[in-house]
Amino acid sequence: MTAPRRVLIVGGVAGGMSAATRLRRLDESAEITVIERGPEVSYANCGLPYYVGGVIPERASLLLQTPDSLHRRFRLDVRVRHEASRIDTARKTVDVIDLDSGRRTVETYDALVLALGASPRRAETGSSIPVLSLRTVADADAIHSSLTRPGIPVVVIGGGYTGLEAAENLVSRGAAVTLVQRGEQLLSPLDIEMSAPILAAVRSHGVDVRLCVTITGTTDGAVALSDGTSAPAELIVDASGVTPETQLATAAGIAIGETGGIRVDASCRTSAPDVFAVGDGVEKTELVGGGTALITMAGLANRHGRMVADIIAGRAPSSRPALGTGIVSVFGSVAAKVGWSEKQLTTAGRDFYTAHVHPASHAGYFPGAETMSMKLLADPLTDRILGAQIVGREGIDKRIDVIATAMHAGLPASELSQLELAYAPQFGSAKDAVNMLGYVAENTRSGTTPTLQWHELDDALTAGAALIDVRTPAEFAAGAIPGAINVPLDELRERLDELPDGPLIVHCQVGLRGHAATRLLAQHGFAVRNLDGGYRTWHDARSARSGSRT
Amino acid sequence: MTAPRRVLIVGGVAGGMSAATRLRRLDESAEITVIERGPEVSYANCGLPYYVGGVIPERASLLLQTPDSLHRRFRLDVRVRHEASRIDTARKTVDVIDLDSGRRTVETYDALVLALGASPRRAETGSSIPVLSLRTVADADAIHSSLTRPGIPVVVIGGGYTGLEAAENLVSRGAAVTLVQRGEQLLSPLDIEMSAPILAAVRSHGVDVRLCVTITGTTDGAVALSDGTSAPAELIVDASGVTPETQLATAAGIAIGETGGIRVDASCRTSAPDVFAVGDGVEKTELVGGGTALITMAGLANRHGRMVADIIAGRAPSSRPALGTGIVSVFGSVAAKVGWSEKQLTTAGRDFYTAHVHPASHAGYFPGAETMSMKLLADPLTDRILGAQIVGREGIDKRIDVIATAMHAGLPASELSQLELAYAPQFGSAKDAVNMLGYVAENTRSGTTPTLQWHELDDALTAGAALIDVRTPAEFAAGAIPGAINVPLDELRERLDELPDGPLIVHCQVGLRGHAATRLLAQHGFAVRNLDGGYRTWHDARSARSGSRT
Repeated sequence: MTAPRRVLIVGGVAGGMSAATRLRRLDESAEITVIERGPEVSYANCGLPYYVGGVIPERASLLLQTPDSLHRRFRLDVRVRHEASRIDTARKTVDVIDLDSGRRTVETYDALVLALGASPRRAETGSSIPVLSLRTVADADAIHSSLTRPGIPVVVIGGGYTGLEAAENLVSRGAAVTLVQRGEQLLSPLDIEMSAPILAAVRSHGVDVRLCVTITGTTDGAVALSDGTSAPAELIVDASGVTPETQLATAAGIAIGETGGIRVDASCRTSAPDVFAVGDGVEKTELVGGGTALITMAGLANRHGRMVADIIAGRAPSSRPALGTGIVSVFGSVAAKVGWSEKQLTTAGRDFYTAHVHPASHAGYFPGAETMSMKLLADPLTDRILGAQIVGREGIDKRIDVIATAMHAGLPASELSQLELAYAPQFGSAKDAVNMLGYVAENTRSGTTPTLQWHELDDALTAGAALIDVRTPAEFAAGAIPGAINVPLDELRERLDELPDGPLIVHCQVGLRGHAATRLLAQHGFAVRNLDGGYRTWHDARSARSGSRT
Repeated sequence: MTAPRRVLIVGGVAGGMSAATRLRRLDESAEITVIERGPEVSYANCGLPYYVGGVIPERASLLLQTPDSLHRRFRLDVRVRHEASRIDTARKTVDVIDLDSGRRTVETYDALVLALGASPRRAETGSSIPVLSLRTVADADAIHSSLTRPGIPVVVIGGGYTGLEAAENLVSRGAAVTLVQRGEQLLSPLDIEMSAPILAAVRSHGVDVRLCVTITGTTDGAVALSDGTSAPAELIVDASGVTPETQLATAAGIAIGETGGIRVDASCRTSAPDVFAVGDGVEKTELVGGGTALITMAGLANRHGRMVADIIAGRAPSSRPALGTGIVSVFGSVAAKVGWSEKQLTTAGRDFYTAHVHPASHAGYFPGAETMSMKLLADPLTDRILGAQIVGREGIDKRIDVIATAMHAGLPASELSQLELAYAPQFGSAKDAVNMLGYVAENTRSGTTPTLQWHELDDALTAGAALIDVRTPAEFAAGAIPGAINVPLDELRERLDELPDGPLIVHCQVGLRGHAATRLLAQHGFAVRNLDGGYRTWHDARSARSGSRT
């Protein structure tokens, strides 16, 4: 195969720039042209909220490459403020408008790469309160300059990754932030009990979180919400989500998938010959379900851009399905996920089992250890890992990356217990948190310790089970599940005759003593299950639920 | 199979306690007796240096469990200050001496678990300068109370994990520390160029590091060294290593392996029937070489202890070969490794290829990013990962754990590029450091960018190759490799005719621009290789080498 002479890339930033620079390294002779509608061809999209908040003090740090630097190093012909207005897939041409001069040209291609991205939703309020998004440097500039005084009231729409980052950074700039979320929880990629610590952190930093509401209109200086309340606002930041940019592709007859993103095969080829597409405008094949999904992550855009360059240069594709790994830090708390949530699995009718643990981020005897909340979802038949969620303050990114690597490699959940992770007391424990999660998964799946989930507890108690809290009397006194009987683990063997005859549910603070109690009682002939994740998971779920009703 | 009635465990701490508690959870009726020579059955071995340094202020934090707490919760019969003096494997008995009363008993067993540990080497100086090790709580107490005044001179023997931790913590207590290391580098599990940043960090914090020397004797208030110099010492801390405790096993006719540790099969069974062994006294099967090695890590001891309990309780073994994952933090710098080093591979005559990268710990545009040094060793035929080493200040533990997980799963080196790791600017980059390492591995192995190692440079230059430094003139002026010609990457295409005709070696600061230059020049017909890891790896190797000669 002869390498194409002329490669046209529409859209810069992650996917487009990865394709362009890799292609140049593989092919000195190709003509590579990048058409970018905006004023910047390469900027740090994920840094924008932190520029607003002043964490990134220099605007220049956001700008990674310029057309000039890209020409010098890679002989790329980068045209910013140029818009591709039409693709003719039969003649292999793209109509391009210079947005400043209005001049129109027709560019030919041997290969075309569409890195069109996604556009932010922007609430229609029909009022004079300005609505901004947080997707481009211009957006960040606009928000930055709107924060004209301390205490300015801002409504953020959306409690996802960007909404939370926006809220945090607006607070650091002194704004009075109301966060409006349509769903019953923040961070909808997580399950509700896992989102609870984030809700608590955000509220404790003064953000007025409103769940289960939408904006119905605006009055003078306030937005009206669907529950009849209102929130003061001189600025609205809409971080409620993005929609793939597909207009150009659609007009050219290029197929769009069911998710609304451009449809591509495993090589990122679209339905049109020699037209590739990558990045947030494209639907991804994902690992857990085997179907397609919109996963708008910079890592995937980069990886696919690079792969397309390889393919254009005549190399073999290296496609892997997406895991949907994500992470967000907000007010010192961190939430991360990979794969599917329990909600997704339930909706899809998938069979799964669940394990919650709350280990320390590093050895408890070394200062600074923080308790994490970890959730694993796995297939009971194959033990394949289907998803994981982790929330806490330290060591979250490490554990989600280890689990993502295990999922990528197809390791079963129980194998997490066997990983030989680096241990010194600053970094982990001799049995690392991930090992513990693997042990609990194995005990759960094998039936060594049958468990019960927090959302199954009420039904089990109604059906006549007794609930035994095996924590200490001091822990019990500080807060207990209604109806629980306190029999501390260390007294359990002596007090077996106090226990009711029927089915038992035991619980402790995080699940570990409950596991020991379950094993003990089962061997003494009791029908017993351990409340997975203990009081802490139950309490998180409860606080998230009550939080969503306020 | 009927579960054994009577299980005897000799040795507490990691391996022994994991076996004992897991076994109780699986079997309420077994009689479980733990014989421990020392006064503590369960303590935080890896925390001892930090107790010496005051990082862990409370001695009580080191003591994890007591015989009493273990009896209450797990009905373990734990006998501290009891020594097993003889095993009769035919009659299945162990002679036990109560070290306080001198009383002797004979204990029978159905299953015996030896968790005998390893004993620290202790230098024989033949003088009045006290020599202490750092292996037990009593050792830590003794060092703690020896530091009677600021500026007290202490010699630490050994530049391994424990020696470095000891040096750091002695410095925080105000001691004047000389570190004496037999080999030419600190941290011998790493290759020399990777140990250089640790050497620099330790020296910059005032530790007088002496390489390539041993102690030959002591004079009044000083140790004499093999190079004719001396070092002041009122205390010597010997952290030069440990030797498996095998006397009890040997006397019982239990087989010892070639490494000097007790020989066990994949189920941790010794050569004697129903006698298991785990922990630092036992040799481990390791993944890369397929042979045995002494790997004294708490994680393996815990894992094997738990597995032995499973086997005793009639469950299937879950053995996995050891990777030898390790990490150490010293003066804010962190070094970690997994698998084999280049030295080990070379000594064993194994075929391998190498990749060095120096990526940032997180997105460069976000404050606080620190440059890491990463080294990967992989099999050129299968692309199997053979080892990795990472040094830096932030994010080291995460990356080594991801690579350890990939090794455990058998992922090829190039697959590291495909891992979908969690990205937000605080935690990583859209192309994470591990992804970059995978890309460089792939480019190296495929021959896309042929590379040259730092230790191959002199020979190549002697053989007539020209060295082109593609960094900027400012970088070149700040420090360059002797003989290099400076042609900045961005000018390379215009200045091709200035380049010599013969073979070229290019380099930049860390390898990335060198990669682009290599691709560019190769396509213009030059015979060119990229200096792997760039100026930084070369400089690290050189500073480590010169450091070892001082």
